Amino acid sequence: MRFVHGTVSGVIALGMACGIVMAQPPAANAGARRPPVKSPEVQADGSVIFRLRAPDAKVVQVTGDFLVSSPMLDAVRNAEGVWEARSSPLPSDMFTYNFMVDGVRALDPSNPAVVRDGSWVESHVIIPGPLAELLDVKDVPHGRVTAVWYPSPTIGMSRRMMVYTPPGYEKGNRKYPVLYLMHGAGGDEEGWINRGRANYILDNLIAAGKAKPMIVVATNGMAVNPAAPDDRPLRMLSAPAAGPGSMMSGKFEESVMKDVIPFVESNFRVKANPANRALAGLSMGGLHTQRIANANPGAFQYIGVMSMGLFGGPAYNKEEHVAQLKKLKAANPSVYYIFCGKSDFVYKGVTELRALYDEIGLKYVYRESQGAHSWYNWRLYLTEFAPLLFQ
Amino acid sequence: MRFVHGTVSGVIALGMACGIVMAQPPAANAGARRPPVKSPEVQADGSVIFRLRAPDAKVVQVTGDFLVSSPMLDAVRNAEGVWEARSSPLPSDMFTYNFMVDGVRALDPSNPAVVRDGSWVESHVIIPGPLAELLDVKDVPHGRVTAVWYPSPTIGMSRRMMVYTPPGYEKGNRKYPVLYLMHGAGGDEEGWINRGRANYILDNLIAAGKAKPMIVVATNGMAVNPAAPDDRPLRMLSAPAAGPGSMMSGKFEESVMKDVIPFVESNFRVKANPANRALAGLSMGGLHTQRIANANPGAFQYIGVMSMGLFGGPAYNKEEHVAQLKKLKAANPSVYYIFCGKSDFVYKGVTELRALYDEIGLKYVYRESQGAHSWYNWRLYLTEFAPLLFQ
Repeated sequence: MRFVHGTVSGVIALGMACGIVMAQPPAANAGARRPPVKSPEVQADGSVIFRLRAPDAKVVQVTGDFLVSSPMLDAVRNAEGVWEARSSPLPSDMFTYNFMVDGVRALDPSNPAVVRDGSWVESHVIIPGPLAELLDVKDVPHGRVTAVWYPSPTIGMSRRMMVYTPPGYEKGNRKYPVLYLMHGAGGDEEGWINRGRANYILDNLIAAGKAKPMIVVATNGMAVNPAAPDDRPLRMLSAPAAGPGSMMSGKFEESVMKDVIPFVESNFRVKANPANRALAGLSMGGLHTQRIANANPGAFQYIGVMSMGLFGGPAYNKEEHVAQLKKLKAANPSVYYIFCGKSDFVYKGVTELRALYDEIGLKYVYRESQGAHSWYNWRLYLTEFAPLLFQ
Repeated sequence: MRFVHGTVSGVIALGMACGIVMAQPPAANAGARRPPVKSPEVQADGSVIFRLRAPDAKVVQVTGDFLVSSPMLDAVRNAEGVWEARSSPLPSDMFTYNFMVDGVRALDPSNPAVVRDGSWVESHVIIPGPLAELLDVKDVPHGRVTAVWYPSPTIGMSRRMMVYTPPGYEKGNRKYPVLYLMHGAGGDEEGWINRGRANYILDNLIAAGKAKPMIVVATNGMAVNPAAPDDRPLRMLSAPAAGPGSMMSGKFEESVMKDVIPFVESNFRVKANPANRALAGLSMGGLHTQRIANANPGAFQYIGVMSMGLFGGPAYNKEEHVAQLKKLKAANPSVYYIFCGKSDFVYKGVTELRALYDEIGLKYVYRESQGAHSWYNWRLYLTEFAPLLFQ
């Protein structure tokens, strides 16, 4: 073997543990010897100060889902080479960000809170307040989150899902209703847990008596991929993550009915009937939700479409769509919610979808929020949708 | 609310899904319109080419646990602003790396494989070959990995553990032996899964008939923290992650015996006896392993100490240590392994520990590997240790 030196991380880590003073601090971590910078720092008014020590950088900016009118916040360098930028006041919520260092994305090295959503890896900050209370890890009973592999004959591979079981599931013989959650394009089965914080939202809602104890199943909606990148076979790591062939083939939607739901209903203690089955998804997952619900009228009594409207394009067949929607109307779902942000780029499509539902007489509730096509809205929608289920 | 624009990620993601051509591509992702670079690219000889598009950077380097004689590999810029660096030939294994862009760490934006170990977030590459076969997600039955919260009255909080249950656990009534795995300083309960790939190593060893089906429990060894950063209460995110008070207090070790093992043995189908109980850990976790095993002779028939030797310092009491070791010797553990890399900075301490065991006559097997204090060794040690257990 050609490598003979240890990792910097291991050395630093054990150095900390042992109180060892290292004679020759590793060069890669030379910055660690300088006074640490505090970042992010939430101010009393909800604004956030971001700081990065980067004496050798030419330009440092901050990018994130909290930004108002520009995709970047310019940072200013002080005499010690520490760059600083301050956001405008933000509401209570979770926001993700990265530094841009001379044009390259970088995590905030001072912030241990990092979240992955597909190939997007970002630092995050939670602004305290009412919504943070629903996202936070509170002193309440916690459900379990399990990574589960299941066979998918429809897609032709073993695939991975994340399953939230509510507090107390592991004791007793009680059966539970199930919410199936679909992620967006570019995401994977971990998105609703990692960035959506679905497990903590459910823990908090259940503890407050605001939601019924339920199982939540988060699938991987990309039919070419069995799992999130680190849980894919090596030979599939570079497989196309996106593309019409994988997302629009209908194979995933078919597999939800043929593979996912039968597996969940035979491997978990589930109330296996439409009155105890909910389906919701964001963006591409909102399209999957529509397609699954439309093709299987009566299979789900609770349906939530987040940030996705009428999906047109060359393959769109209005006649077929209307025929499906009429059957769905006849099946009379208990709850059909459409959620959209006022500034979402799918807003027009959502307006068209609502118009079609109105024309047909398919009942739905429309919930319009501030903001755009972003996780701060999808987490919000989950906090509003989950309490409506299985009541 | 002050924010009205969506995230770049969401827009890009749905744009991909819908085949939407965006009139105004977000500036933050302007780079995405340029031809993508391929990175990392594993060559036939096992060397790896790393590439980063960073036309505005002054200096780009690569840092990682594969490096031989320098903590950095210098990259060279081409006319298009793409930087390139090439490693020496590497053996089959998994290696982690980051770019350093004008002195700031950055993930490889072309590589979806990202692994978090404590506050270290790194891109990774797997070099195909024999060891990769043990780390890879193969076409074999997969166990489940569950994030489980448990009460720890000893530490005074609810805490989080990761539990691997082997394929088939969820069906039937069979009971299983348990391997308790301890992480290093700076790590957390997810380290042995995320970066250690313990679940896939076990899947592969079990499928090949080389290891007995077993449960693996990975704890969080930092008594001040209940969980990994994203799963900590907001108020504890900035709590001291390191320090003698938390690591050396003995509270964690005490909680393993009083809280962790009783919880596991009453919440999972476990063979609850010393012959079916193994304990192993790396670095700080190797110290925890020693301290737990020494204080509880006979509790574990299988003990593995990885990359940790005699832990001296002002508080060290040789008389007490020897008295404990004599009791441990009397308890006669079936397997006691000490693992260390030839270039590990704890090598001297390991030599001292072995000398003491020799002096006392406590039997152990010493396994010395190439390399240093690094995950490529700890994964290797797990592939060698797990087959010895419960035979």
